Amino acid sequence: MANSRFGYVRDFEEYEKLVPYSFTVVRIDGQSFHRFSDIHQFEKPNDKRALECMNSAAKFVLEEIQDVILAFGESDEFSFLLRPQTTLYDRRKAKILTKVVSAFTSAFVYNWGRYFSTPLAYPPGFDGRTVTYPHPKHVRDYFAWRQVDTHINNLYNTTFWAIVQQGGKTEREAHKILQGTVSAEKHDILFKEYGINYNTLDDLYKKGSILVRIPPPMPEIPADGSYKDKKKIEKIRKDGIDGTRGPIEILHLDIIKDTFWNDRPWLLSQLD
Amino acid sequence: MANSRFGYVRDFEEYEKLVPYSFTVVRIDGQSFHRFSDIHQFEKPNDKRALECMNSAAKFVLEEIQDVILAFGESDEFSFLLRPQTTLYDRRKAKILTKVVSAFTSAFVYNWGRYFSTPLAYPPGFDGRTVTYPHPKHVRDYFAWRQVDTHINNLYNTTFWAIVQQGGKTEREAHKILQGTVSAEKHDILFKEYGINYNTLDDLYKKGSILVRIPPPMPEIPADGSYKDKKKIEKIRKDGIDGTRGPIEILHLDIIKDTFWNDRPWLLSQLD
Amino acid sequence: MANSRFGYVRDFEEYEKLVPYSFTVVRIDGQSFHRFSDIHQFEKPNDKRALECMNSAAKFVLEEIQDVILAFGESDEFSFLLRPQTTLYDRRKAKILTKVVSAFTSAFVYNWGRYFSTPLAYPPGFDGRTVTYPHPKHVRDYFAWRQVDTHINNLYNTTFWAIVQQGGKTEREAHKILQGTVSAEKHDILFKEYGINYNTLDDLYKKGSILVRIPPPMPEIPADGSYKDKKKIEKIRKDGIDGTRGPIEILHLDIIKDTFWNDRPWLLSQLD
Amino acid sequence: MANSRFGYVRDFEEYEKLVPYSFTVVRIDGQSFHRFSDIHQFEKPNDKRALECMNSAAKFVLEEIQDVILAFGESDEFSFLLRPQTTLYDRRKAKILTKVVSAFTSAFVYNWGRYFSTPLAYPPGFDGRTVTYPHPKHVRDYFAWRQVDTHINNLYNTTFWAIVQQGGKTEREAHKILQGTVSAEKHDILFKEYGINYNTLDDLYKKGSILVRIPPPMPEIPADGSYKDKKKIEKIRKDGIDGTRGPIEILHLDIIKDTFWNDRPWLLSQLD
Repeated sequence: MANSRFGYVRDFEEYEKLVPYSFTVVRIDGQSFHRFSDIHQFEKPNDKRALECMNSAAKFVLEEIQDVILAFGESDEFSFLLRPQTTLYDRRKAKILTKVVSAFTSAFVYNWGRYFSTPLAYPPGFDGRTVTYPHPKHVRDYFAWRQVDTHINNLYNTTFWAIVQQGGKTEREAHKILQGTVSAEKHDILFKEYGINYNTLDDLYKKGSILVRIPPPMPEIPADGSYKDKKKIEKIRKDGIDGTRGPIEILHLDIIKDTFWNDRPWLLSQLD
Repeated sequence: MANSRFGYVRDFEEYEKLVPYSFTVVRIDGQSFHRFSDIHQFEKPNDKRALECMNSAAKFVLEEIQDVILAFGESDEFSFLLRPQTTLYDRRKAKILTKVVSAFTSAFVYNWGRYFSTPLAYPPGFDGRTVTYPHPKHVRDYFAWRQVDTHINNLYNTTFWAIVQQGGKTEREAHKILQGTVSAEKHDILFKEYGINYNTLDDLYKKGSILVRIPPPMPEIPADGSYKDKKKIEKIRKDGIDGTRGPIEILHLDIIKDTFWNDRPWLLSQLD
Repeated sequence: MANSRFGYVRDFEEYEKLVPYSFTVVRIDGQSFHRFSDIHQFEKPNDKRALECMNSAAKFVLEEIQDVILAFGESDEFSFLLRPQTTLYDRRKAKILTKVVSAFTSAFVYNWGRYFSTPLAYPPGFDGRTVTYPHPKHVRDYFAWRQVDTHINNLYNTTFWAIVQQGGKTEREAHKILQGTVSAEKHDILFKEYGINYNTLDDLYKKGSILVRIPPPMPEIPADGSYKDKKKIEKIRKDGIDGTRGPIEILHLDIIKDTFWNDRPWLLSQLD
Repeated sequence: MANSRFGYVRDFEEYEKLVPYSFTVVRIDGQSFHRFSDIHQFEKPNDKRALECMNSAAKFVLEEIQDVILAFGESDEFSFLLRPQTTLYDRRKAKILTKVVSAFTSAFVYNWGRYFSTPLAYPPGFDGRTVTYPHPKHVRDYFAWRQVDTHINNLYNTTFWAIVQQGGKTEREAHKILQGTVSAEKHDILFKEYGINYNTLDDLYKKGSILVRIPPPMPEIPADGSYKDKKKIEKIRKDGIDGTRGPIEILHLDIIKDTFWNDRPWLLSQLD
């Protein structure tokens, strides 16, 4: 940027940083997505095309930012976990936050046509926030919190739309029927009145979507490897599995119990 | 959001706010736009399609957020001014910042096809930051800083590409020729060697783009107006011109001298 | 500080800064001063010794920090105004805040014996906060807010203690008598029942205490002055009156109306 | 605080909080203590009275704030560790920071006469900062960093003042002699030239001062205890040892190796 007598205005810029070695979650939410889903005639209770478009945008975020090692999405929201060790943008909060939000938004609009035959009616928006967690327990509880939310919302919505679509009730009537019901009662309504066994529904809807990398096998150092290759391979071996390398997979499974985390211990590794 | 034993993780969220009644600038910058402009074969020194696509995205930001009352763009960056009085999102910094960045990104991708016949090769990204200015002088100096930057960069780039494209020099040679030259010397090179009178070039390139609303005429209160209309009109008259209403115009003129600001005194109005 | 393999822990330190050219108020409050005033048998409704000890501590703050150009105190609280132009500690918030709180606390304890014949029973504490105001209007309103508070509290306390001390009522009875009364009624009770004309009471109690510097006369540049003196004098003349030089005076007068501020225009001067 | 039309100025106050469940260190430093130690004729290289006065002030901080569970001091600085679980002042950063700085300053001035026969020449000041550490490793490394600093400074100062006081050199000459020397060389100078075995010096100087509580024995629940006692005792037993209860001891021992921390595991306990 060119210098001039006005250049002093740069001194007003802040460089707030993420607390070193803490876990950072960036959560993004669709703005006015109730209206957005009406205009684009999303299927109820879940629109597979929309969820897959969301997942494709999240995948782009992981492709763009190596240090995002985990993502979880449901409905019109997505959460991204940054490694505590990241030095991305010198840990500047605003840069990291806007990088994630912009990449997600850009990919969502860019990929839309892959999932929908009707064009976008207008440019959709997402907002975002960062949250700092000092301890692995908080990270697990954060993702558990989102998956419990997925479950509760999906059970409600599935029952609600069965009552409306199959039961021929109005939305107002459906709300009234569901008021005060607990989970077991919703399962009952679904099964007895509409023949739907909730447990057999697609895990994409019941569990949400998890994005994580499959770590590549540790490379061997070839006896006759070039010096450069050897250096690079040694570095990879030294770093070990840190979640930043390997193909990205999209899973729909339980993130609350221990199994998911025990299978991927690097996700909660906090120190160098 | 559903409650559960994990809900405590919400307590880690921060709600940092913009300083009340201070001016806030949100500046966004294209990420890796050097590579982006190469891949999409932008014309040198300026690609009119790209600038117009940027302007269309900025216009969408003003349409989405009434309290953004001024924007200035050049190259791959745009700056947005929020009214000091805004109560948008209770002045939460992260929400406002990401709203602007996401709206801009979304519209840029959405509008691309209007300006370019070749499709986007991949989803482009923008990062953003907020800067707080307590005094109108800083706001004027901020926008002056960006327009001086526009001028300096454009004069350099125009001369550089004339030397390369018309003079048949390599880029390395062109850099060397320009090293240490002052403005007058660049004007001379342009005019004497390439017959280009810099002053006659398009103001879009020389001045950048300003987005601002044309305030609507103050409405009359009709003698027989319905109560509701009268209320609404009275409110508009009471608020006066505050930059939030009226059609958006895109200008390419001097934002450094007094005229621009004297003609639009509401832009620097700081109190209720 | 010595370097070692542990030195990396410094990287966790933040350097949050005050917004440039904004007004900053540091307000300090006594901690548990209800108990403190009981133990040290403060006179009711006002203890002149305590207020003067507070004022002496505030004076020390102004002596220590040139860029504190105004202070206002009442009861167990004091507010300090920093010039928007200050570069103290590179405007680091925590340093400035703790400097003021520590200087005040230290001087309060140090000066105690000058005002009280009984020794301090234990070390008293004060907490503090910074508040940022972008516009002179907010600064005036801030100090007006504190002086209105002074007036309301003092009128209540004066009436309350008259009822208790002269009227022989219990504190509970006095509270009940005053419940729901407006100012005029309190004036009436004071005058008619206890012969106290509120308006003739000491302004120290009614208005609180203002600390501000009397600017020295602008020095003349002597025809035969040494080069060094001339330089120094030229600098003082160039800076003009900025509130940082001259003897400190303690005033008890109206800070809400225009007069106080019109007489000292430099207090609200915001730019260089 | 009384309401008035000026009350809106409160909305400018921020309530920045410490990151939940992270460790917080508050470090305070004497301001201009070089000058302060000259004026009060501190003994060189260490003044036992001054260090004990510092320690007494730190002890007062622990007495005032239960959730400060560890302190380390040397020279004119002290570091205080807050439990990650603290809910003090709703974790508001400025309140906690100023509470510590004010309590320390107040007690230092209050206690001065206990350690010095000459009165304080003026009120001394301390500044402070908070630092956030997400992981127990950082906490250990922070305190190790300070104790390494204590050692390096004390070895230097001890040798420096031996050269000056016993060797009759000027301070300038002493600095020159020590320039570039490593630890072993300083030990040698001390022992061979001045007969001082550094290792036999007072640990107060070599190790600094650690303040920590001796946890009380877990109370028994009496068979015939009153309901209230039983409740209280049950609560204490449930909380276990958390470092907030018991008499404060002042230690001068190694805080870098494992022993200190292994003996007091509650100091690094991070969750409920």
